[in-house]
Amino acid sequence: MFNIIQEVKKIEKDIINWRRKLHQIPEVGLNLRKTSKFIMDELDNMNIEYHTLVNGNAIVGLIKGREEGKTVGLRADTDALPVKEETGLEFASNNGCMHACGHDGHTAILLGVAKVLNENKDKFKGNVKLLFQPGEEYPGGAKPMIEEGALENPKVDAVMGLHLGNLGKGIPKGKIGVSYGAMMAAVDVMYIKINGKGSHGAYPHQAIDPIVTASEIVLALQTIISREVDPVEPAVVSVTRIDGGFNHNIIPDSVEIQGTIRTVNEDTRQRISRRIEEIVKGITMAHGGSYEIDYEFCYPALINSEEFTKGFVESAKKIIPEDDIVEMKVPVMGAEDMSFFLQRVPGTFFYLSNPGEIDGQFYPHHNPKFDIDEEEIWKGAALIIQSTIDWLNEN
Amino acid sequence: MFNIIQEVKKIEKDIINWRRKLHQIPEVGLNLRKTSKFIMDELDNMNIEYHTLVNGNAIVGLIKGREEGKTVGLRADTDALPVKEETGLEFASNNGCMHACGHDGHTAILLGVAKVLNENKDKFKGNVKLLFQPGEEYPGGAKPMIEEGALENPKVDAVMGLHLGNLGKGIPKGKIGVSYGAMMAAVDVMYIKINGKGSHGAYPHQAIDPIVTASEIVLALQTIISREVDPVEPAVVSVTRIDGGFNHNIIPDSVEIQGTIRTVNEDTRQRISRRIEEIVKGITMAHGGSYEIDYEFCYPALINSEEFTKGFVESAKKIIPEDDIVEMKVPVMGAEDMSFFLQRVPGTFFYLSNPGEIDGQFYPHHNPKFDIDEEEIWKGAALIIQSTIDWLNEN
Amino acid sequence: MFNIIQEVKKIEKDIINWRRKLHQIPEVGLNLRKTSKFIMDELDNMNIEYHTLVNGNAIVGLIKGREEGKTVGLRADTDALPVKEETGLEFASNNGCMHACGHDGHTAILLGVAKVLNENKDKFKGNVKLLFQPGEEYPGGAKPMIEEGALENPKVDAVMGLHLGNLGKGIPKGKIGVSYGAMMAAVDVMYIKINGKGSHGAYPHQAIDPIVTASEIVLALQTIISREVDPVEPAVVSVTRIDGGFNHNIIPDSVEIQGTIRTVNEDTRQRISRRIEEIVKGITMAHGGSYEIDYEFCYPALINSEEFTKGFVESAKKIIPEDDIVEMKVPVMGAEDMSFFLQRVPGTFFYLSNPGEIDGQFYPHHNPKFDIDEEEIWKGAALIIQSTIDWLNEN
Amino acid sequence: MFNIIQEVKKIEKDIINWRRKLHQIPEVGLNLRKTSKFIMDELDNMNIEYHTLVNGNAIVGLIKGREEGKTVGLRADTDALPVKEETGLEFASNNGCMHACGHDGHTAILLGVAKVLNENKDKFKGNVKLLFQPGEEYPGGAKPMIEEGALENPKVDAVMGLHLGNLGKGIPKGKIGVSYGAMMAAVDVMYIKINGKGSHGAYPHQAIDPIVTASEIVLALQTIISREVDPVEPAVVSVTRIDGGFNHNIIPDSVEIQGTIRTVNEDTRQRISRRIEEIVKGITMAHGGSYEIDYEFCYPALINSEEFTKGFVESAKKIIPEDDIVEMKVPVMGAEDMSFFLQRVPGTFFYLSNPGEIDGQFYPHHNPKFDIDEEEIWKGAALIIQSTIDWLNEN
Repeated sequence: MFNIIQEVKKIEKDIINWRRKLHQIPEVGLNLRKTSKFIMDELDNMNIEYHTLVNGNAIVGLIKGREEGKTVGLRADTDALPVKEETGLEFASNNGCMHACGHDGHTAILLGVAKVLNENKDKFKGNVKLLFQPGEEYPGGAKPMIEEGALENPKVDAVMGLHLGNLGKGIPKGKIGVSYGAMMAAVDVMYIKINGKGSHGAYPHQAIDPIVTASEIVLALQTIISREVDPVEPAVVSVTRIDGGFNHNIIPDSVEIQGTIRTVNEDTRQRISRRIEEIVKGITMAHGGSYEIDYEFCYPALINSEEFTKGFVESAKKIIPEDDIVEMKVPVMGAEDMSFFLQRVPGTFFYLSNPGEIDGQFYPHHNPKFDIDEEEIWKGAALIIQSTIDWLNEN
Repeated sequence: MFNIIQEVKKIEKDIINWRRKLHQIPEVGLNLRKTSKFIMDELDNMNIEYHTLVNGNAIVGLIKGREEGKTVGLRADTDALPVKEETGLEFASNNGCMHACGHDGHTAILLGVAKVLNENKDKFKGNVKLLFQPGEEYPGGAKPMIEEGALENPKVDAVMGLHLGNLGKGIPKGKIGVSYGAMMAAVDVMYIKINGKGSHGAYPHQAIDPIVTASEIVLALQTIISREVDPVEPAVVSVTRIDGGFNHNIIPDSVEIQGTIRTVNEDTRQRISRRIEEIVKGITMAHGGSYEIDYEFCYPALINSEEFTKGFVESAKKIIPEDDIVEMKVPVMGAEDMSFFLQRVPGTFFYLSNPGEIDGQFYPHHNPKFDIDEEEIWKGAALIIQSTIDWLNEN
Repeated sequence: MFNIIQEVKKIEKDIINWRRKLHQIPEVGLNLRKTSKFIMDELDNMNIEYHTLVNGNAIVGLIKGREEGKTVGLRADTDALPVKEETGLEFASNNGCMHACGHDGHTAILLGVAKVLNENKDKFKGNVKLLFQPGEEYPGGAKPMIEEGALENPKVDAVMGLHLGNLGKGIPKGKIGVSYGAMMAAVDVMYIKINGKGSHGAYPHQAIDPIVTASEIVLALQTIISREVDPVEPAVVSVTRIDGGFNHNIIPDSVEIQGTIRTVNEDTRQRISRRIEEIVKGITMAHGGSYEIDYEFCYPALINSEEFTKGFVESAKKIIPEDDIVEMKVPVMGAEDMSFFLQRVPGTFFYLSNPGEIDGQFYPHHNPKFDIDEEEIWKGAALIIQSTIDWLNEN
Repeated sequence: MFNIIQEVKKIEKDIINWRRKLHQIPEVGLNLRKTSKFIMDELDNMNIEYHTLVNGNAIVGLIKGREEGKTVGLRADTDALPVKEETGLEFASNNGCMHACGHDGHTAILLGVAKVLNENKDKFKGNVKLLFQPGEEYPGGAKPMIEEGALENPKVDAVMGLHLGNLGKGIPKGKIGVSYGAMMAAVDVMYIKINGKGSHGAYPHQAIDPIVTASEIVLALQTIISREVDPVEPAVVSVTRIDGGFNHNIIPDSVEIQGTIRTVNEDTRQRISRRIEEIVKGITMAHGGSYEIDYEFCYPALINSEEFTKGFVESAKKIIPEDDIVEMKVPVMGAEDMSFFLQRVPGTFFYLSNPGEIDGQFYPHHNPKFDIDEEEIWKGAALIIQSTIDWLNEN
């Protein structure tokens, strides 16, 4: 076996360099022209074959090993955020957008992984598929990639991905977080409109007051979590916006409610989506009003394969000390569309904690002063390479 | 014309005497054997013809005037309350029941009215029907009397009745209160059972929690008054009992709710009865439960005839000073089944304020120390006689 | 006595003409340059002395009778509304504002009253003070006029005013509505801000959710009317606006609530203002938030003097048939700043029903197609003149 | 090493026999005369020294190993339930109480463990303390045992216990359930009285309505779980009883609320206890009422030592197949006062699934037809013996 750490260290500077260049061309959503061109140029430099999906914004590369075998998909999300950077870094972006969630690092790591694996394709059997995915933050790029065939030809048998950054006190800097099952929540969105009948505020009996109805609905929605979901199962129903009325003396015709729903169990997710409508229906009916509801299923829960993750942890121990592998016993309520890949193919997603200090502080993700520590980046590449080679050779 | 005040004063002692005797034989509800016998004996003494209704507990007497004409019904309620008397009066009751609402006075006055009118039947045309009614407090005697024909043969064209007692600061002692329209509220009763599904308190997700559903219903019922009834129209929806659960750790199967509804407008009354069920239905549906509801229409609102009352007030001015006639501009939320008579026949009901002092205080109706001042009683008789004769002779 | 109806009929065309001219120069609020100039020009034409208040926008005229006596204040509100007229009338306004509440009629009537009384000042003793008031709709002109001395020099002993227009089915066209007491509600405004603590919607435990708190407050406010105000006393607490949050996944820091409060009893008004704050305080405290509240006392209830109104009705019977005088037994929940004058000086305010038909319909006040029927206008002037002269000569 | 399975199998019949005898003398709470005598008699038979606590109802035995060392406490709960048995078993109880929770099995197992360990005291160093505890179901016997010194002389260094029975589909029959941390919830009880002011239902403005206040409190309490506790942390706040009012027309003076609180984190538990009072205080204040609250901290959460449990699992693998050891990843919301021992001393509590079939069904705990399968009982003894000896010899 070749020394993976050594191989990665050789190109560590390249990875960091790629990351900085990507950091300067942040693009948002599903239209990542410059980012995609950058990736394709580098794949060209490496002589790695690829094709694009999602209107040219998703790039699927393929590295074939020394003989036929299974295929591992390695996914990096490539999009940035509509945040104006305030890090003051030399390579800070100045186009009004910002890689404030570390995706520049993810992309650079996958380029590094590609380079090493491509140069060592005699070391493994089967194939490695590179999955450069746009639109993770919004509106989701994994789903269209899959729908356009990213997991076919050759069929992907396992997937892997990582997330860098500030992972809180649970995963100290330099360590990784792994989960053997539910790791991140499904995220859904509700939009509800309560229709009543407006009137002058002095004549409430001529109205069907949607503000009172909406208030009852807000309280009744609390009971989904407090009464209907198993207490040991994480779930959230948050009303985040309520809006109705114009001034102090006109009862409005309607009130709008918006919110988010987080679950880790698909049955619970489906049940909550039904229960929300039942509650809204029953209470508007009770008051003689009507309603409109739009429940949007966004990203499913991110569920790692227990078996694949066990294998990943075995591989990881070859790269980092066992103590640096932290088991996450409960899911986080945040979401990730890596979950779409893991819904179809077993695999694992892991965290690599590398918060970067700006002005003496570690800022959270999506903050204008968020940064990642480049010194830890090599670990991400080495872990993925080790695990990929191990899995391909063992399966 | 004969002098009505003089005629009444002649028998004032009789009236007071009757009142005290009745006070000593209080009976409750629709079974008033002793009271009825007392009344019939006195009518016999006066040679007034009568027949009974409601199993012998309602007495309908008839006095024919000098010539044919219309018929005025004069109503007195004769029942007492299951209250143990504490007045310490010489003639206090000791049978565990008590005339704590002044019905002894009403009955005695009507006997006095009967005596005077019977002795002066040459002074008026038409007929006077005496309506001695049981069960005013509970469960209602007016309705069965009417159903058994109390207002027919001869057909009653107008009705009158009064209430004695402690009428609050609005009607000072010795004065009368009159209303030209809605005077007392309709009273209805609701009984609701919210059915959910019980479970251990540690496993709420296995239950359909009826306590939470019932709590939402209690709050939603508030909006009937706060939002749905015209602010200028008096109405009350009171939840007076809520009961569910046994101990600290079992979520019960069901919760019971009871309450009272008061209205002065029949449309509003009907609408509220529907709205209560709609609210209960919608909210139980919202939470996956079911319900049982029993809405009992008890007494309708007591609505005086404006025209009859104007005539009554003209008659009253002949008996008492104009300043002693107080117009009640808003209805009281209490109820009276005199309303059933007034629902079918125009007429008026009036208050005569004569609170009696016990231990230096005026106690409210239904209190074990309630009393009436016998010195004002003659006014009740004189007012009814004057108004009856005037109306019969003018119509 | 001279014939008032005849005198008014003589100048009926002038009144209508003034009304149409005023209709073409509608001005809003407290800055009524053209309207004021028009009134002053006409008073000059009539040789009536006057002075201005409220920066020249309120005009106070004085007509002295044949000898010393009491002083009657006659009030007309002169402002219009920010409504774009759509009546299609020949004399419709085209400046974007509109006399959509009949104040043009009120002003024209008062000019007519002034003309007749001025020409007949030998017919009465005492004085007539003309009170042309701006800003009735908003923000209130009566209060500043009073503060600047409108009711002094000479001291006003009684006031009168009227409202024209579409008064609903309660007061048919051509008839007047009078009230012997509480006629219109006090209007107040509440502005409440519920401060919690924002967070991501997936992490509610890091927030103090102001949406849930605000919803509880909305429901708790319902209990002021449903539980705390005497059912026979008209009152309204309407939450008319609720607004908090931006999108589907951020729990906001705060929620704003606005609304209106209507009462007819000053004690109840004060109590409700306190109760609102107590409810907001208790419930925000219960949830660990804080609040800001601004309770603005706007116009007090409009309470007519019973005695003055009785006199007015006697005078009115000389002008219109008794059947055309409708007693309003319950107050309306709308408001009028005539109430400030009536708070300080006894008097009466009455309605004259004269809806004008546009496109075959009678539109409500504040509607772009609202109109008044000019054929009934003379009655307003005649009623005021008759009542003024009668009162001055009798007091 | 001696063969533990063999040793246990030798006395399996004794254990079953003890269990049946205990099953026939079920006693409730802290007064277990017959049960205690039975245990003491058997310990006497085994020549094991012991003393009693809790008025003679808790028995603490001591077995000293071959040389000095640490001390392991082995706990069995000995009390039964006030349930009338309906199993129809030959050895069914007929005294109105029933071992419907398997404690007869726990006690018999601990007697078996004692016998084997006592006969093999040369096989381990240190001491084994036998902790026969009354009152697990109610009102708690662990706490008084500890307070009276059960964990001292010699000081206990680790504790172990088990629970038999019907453990649901999560732990199939014959398998054991282990947890490396929070295994069972803390249980607390709340008792709240909302004081308002009663009045007649027709006059709500004379009342401070405690039913409306209590309803708001019930809904507000839902937000503790829905908004304030981290979604990944199990917790329950259940209102299980609400009771106020007598009939349909009297608003009562007060309403009572009871309920249970379950948590697995002590900080959360303390916080919820405070938050409940704050919510009750804020909302009663909002409505002008007052409150009484009694928050009773009952059993703490049962938290296993991760390290001890790892050792236990290693020992267990010597007795049963690895596949029969099920890791419980989330806690159950039920409670156990074994938690008091584990609060003071590291150790582990585990489940042994052995539901007994009655009438073709497996009934749940506390059911009159609950039973345990005696064929699995030997495992409980063997697992405890193995783990005890391993731990004592290794520590």
